[in-house]
Amino acid sequence: MTVSRMAPKSLYKQIYEGYRQAIVEGNLRAGQRVPSTRVLAGELGISRIPVLNGYAQLLAEGYFQSRVGSGTTVSASLPERAADVRPVDRRPRKIGEERRRVSKRCANLWSPEGFFGSRGLGAFAVAQIAFEHFPLAIWNRLVTRHSRSVRAPSLDYGDPMGLKELREAIAAHVRTARGVRCEAHQTMIVSGSQQGLEITTRALLDPDDQVWMEEPGYRFARSVFAGSGCKVAPVTVDSEGLKVSAGAKKCGAARAVFVTPSHQYPLGVMMSASRRLQLLDWAESHGSWIIEDDYDSEYRYEGMPVTSLQGLDRNSRVVYIGTFSKVLFPALRLGYLVIPEDLVERFLAARFALDIGPATLPQAVLADFIGEGHFARHIRRMRRVYGERRSTLVDNLRRQLGSAVEITGAEAGMHLSATLRGIRDVELSARGAGENLRLVPLSPFYMGRAARQGFILGFGNTAVPEIPAAVDRLCKLLRSRQP
Amino acid sequence: MTVSRMAPKSLYKQIYEGYRQAIVEGNLRAGQRVPSTRVLAGELGISRIPVLNGYAQLLAEGYFQSRVGSGTTVSASLPERAADVRPVDRRPRKIGEERRRVSKRCANLWSPEGFFGSRGLGAFAVAQIAFEHFPLAIWNRLVTRHSRSVRAPSLDYGDPMGLKELREAIAAHVRTARGVRCEAHQTMIVSGSQQGLEITTRALLDPDDQVWMEEPGYRFARSVFAGSGCKVAPVTVDSEGLKVSAGAKKCGAARAVFVTPSHQYPLGVMMSASRRLQLLDWAESHGSWIIEDDYDSEYRYEGMPVTSLQGLDRNSRVVYIGTFSKVLFPALRLGYLVIPEDLVERFLAARFALDIGPATLPQAVLADFIGEGHFARHIRRMRRVYGERRSTLVDNLRRQLGSAVEITGAEAGMHLSATLRGIRDVELSARGAGENLRLVPLSPFYMGRAARQGFILGFGNTAVPEIPAAVDRLCKLLRSRQP
Repeated sequence: MTVSRMAPKSLYKQIYEGYRQAIVEGNLRAGQRVPSTRVLAGELGISRIPVLNGYAQLLAEGYFQSRVGSGTTVSASLPERAADVRPVDRRPRKIGEERRRVSKRCANLWSPEGFFGSRGLGAFAVAQIAFEHFPLAIWNRLVTRHSRSVRAPSLDYGDPMGLKELREAIAAHVRTARGVRCEAHQTMIVSGSQQGLEITTRALLDPDDQVWMEEPGYRFARSVFAGSGCKVAPVTVDSEGLKVSAGAKKCGAARAVFVTPSHQYPLGVMMSASRRLQLLDWAESHGSWIIEDDYDSEYRYEGMPVTSLQGLDRNSRVVYIGTFSKVLFPALRLGYLVIPEDLVERFLAARFALDIGPATLPQAVLADFIGEGHFARHIRRMRRVYGERRSTLVDNLRRQLGSAVEITGAEAGMHLSATLRGIRDVELSARGAGENLRLVPLSPFYMGRAARQGFILGFGNTAVPEIPAAVDRLCKLLRSRQP
Repeated sequence: MTVSRMAPKSLYKQIYEGYRQAIVEGNLRAGQRVPSTRVLAGELGISRIPVLNGYAQLLAEGYFQSRVGSGTTVSASLPERAADVRPVDRRPRKIGEERRRVSKRCANLWSPEGFFGSRGLGAFAVAQIAFEHFPLAIWNRLVTRHSRSVRAPSLDYGDPMGLKELREAIAAHVRTARGVRCEAHQTMIVSGSQQGLEITTRALLDPDDQVWMEEPGYRFARSVFAGSGCKVAPVTVDSEGLKVSAGAKKCGAARAVFVTPSHQYPLGVMMSASRRLQLLDWAESHGSWIIEDDYDSEYRYEGMPVTSLQGLDRNSRVVYIGTFSKVLFPALRLGYLVIPEDLVERFLAARFALDIGPATLPQAVLADFIGEGHFARHIRRMRRVYGERRSTLVDNLRRQLGSAVEITGAEAGMHLSATLRGIRDVELSARGAGENLRLVPLSPFYMGRAARQGFILGFGNTAVPEIPAAVDRLCKLLRSRQP
């Protein structure tokens, strides 16, 4: 035992930690005598006070024991420990081996390690907004105003359903803008559509339950179902959306279906009226649930926004998921669920078990942003901005690639799907990074054989003046491909 | 079809919705002719423009079809629908029935419906802080400062591990204050300890895996394991914490153990050195994981804070969970995980699938709050405040109840456990509400037969001057109990 007055740690802590370490590492054994506080203080040449305090802590935590007559010893009840002669190896084995077994259900999940650091580089990035058009000054003014008016009670846990004012504002918005039939009491604030889907899966599905997913479909929804041990049945999407008859034939006993009817992800097609009614009928007759992810349909450039599937449902079979990640900004981490009324309590229990509830401040700010009309104005303005970007992109793709490209899904949202024949999209996507292009390949969105190769091209964060040159670079890349 | 110029909806929308509703409700059938736009405009006495627009939308969405020569009809491909004669019943059946089957795994979860609305009423509420002592002015100043300096890039998705500055600040804090061995790259920001446990369970455990939990133990941890279909084995807690030998005997093949070694929840005992080393040895020899929930141990009133179990672990077997809900405030919804280095990527994949990542602004504010020393000052100040509250509570309980009460866990945190013989805690707790007492009963924290009855008494939000009268009311309640 050595101690130093010069060390940043107090003498007391040095004595405590010195003994603890010696015991944990097996250099002091159970039952072994330690010097009396008087003797140790003398040996170390320090006052007895820190030694007494160090010993008291070691006694309190059970490293030492003290018996009248026999002095202080290392606790006799400590397990035998072999002294470690090797230096401790912090990454001793490969994970997944028997000795460091981790869950099987997360084995094949995509890990975003390093992914987010490289975002924002290159044209056509998906799920990025026109950051420069966000009304930051207004938003920040509302944050400041709220933060000034925060009172102690709003520091406590809030309602796990979310802030009442925000739920009311959202319910009013989706009733008008999306034709959703809902009230605030069935609207739950979540931290984005991903969590919304997680809560829905929790509340409705058990391991081994079957779920239809669109093929191709949103791969991070697959992660949610995989995490719960559900079995995903891919169901083909054609120009009218999910082929309900194919699903019914392939997997009629599915407990749920995950769909993006307004703007199918990734192809962008809109589900037709006929498929919508077929799907609602199928769900009702099989006692199955429909999970509608309506992630970006505030922006529709041709005609009115398409009414949500939820709005057509007469049997409370649809759970509706909305998000502010596209229509406001992703770092906000706010979205919402509209839950069938009889299921609200179950969803609430599932949500509470997941994360107790949402943070208060961002909700309060958003409620005001909607309530004071900024949200509606922002959507109107952005519909023009994105509308120009998508027209420019479509025009340039058509002009340069002609019939070599099939464009789908350009009528809405912030991305379109460009199917290209005779390419390997994953390979080209990797090479595109060098050309300042962020090309999301289409084929990984298929669970089975990819019927299409191509790219999902985001135009949310690619401004009109950048687009012609970016399409030029894309064409160059396509021409340069290995035969 | 009738339309009104006085309605808040445009004529175009009225026409679209009128037809859509008639089709969805089965009043217009597949293939049925509809009037030409000219005829309808004439009948309604309006211009042809809104009719053309309404028809265009109905055609685009697939409700109508139009063929040269045969005019416009309801789409032939629409499924047959029986006209609903009954009014639509929004809560048609009991959930859980075959026709509205929901998940079994969420069937027994506690639902917080209505719970949070009634919080803050009464003495001894658990998990509440001394709201009036939170340095709101400083916090709000940091929020305002950050919100003014927000630039467009920070609106994008952030790092799913959390903001680097915050992870560094937390790693430095837990190294010093909790003896945790960690670096920022293995520290993940989560939305509180509940989500931290969820992510851990995802990454490490599969359905049917066995987990030890303390008996009695934190019931909302049980919800997490239940949600993943894990099997929980309750392991007795005595005055030294979890009885490792009992666990090994009962369920030696457990894949993980959930423990609160610094301040056992709910009893409050500290796990002894001997049990700690036994648990680490057991985990290493069985290839099992230790999940350490260290929810409130910044506040210790006797001796130094007890070093975390993670800090004693030489084999990277411990996942450490911390939270700011107690030490700052619950509405913030921020906590953290310290992950064994080789498991970081798996945890990241699990977290991404759950909710993509945390919101940016609150993290940035917290990083500054810690970095500028406010956090350390706040902890020091609150240790005094809570220390006085707990002494007052202990003194009053001892004086009034003497040997009838066994107090455990008063050395740390913001609650103690009061075991009382011969009472029915659940029943008394319900009656306490009328006496302005928020008594959390002890017995529901047992999975098996409750070995103790009593209350968890929070002193976080019960000020010194309130305590004597509150203890009086508690004693009155105890005396009034039915024999």
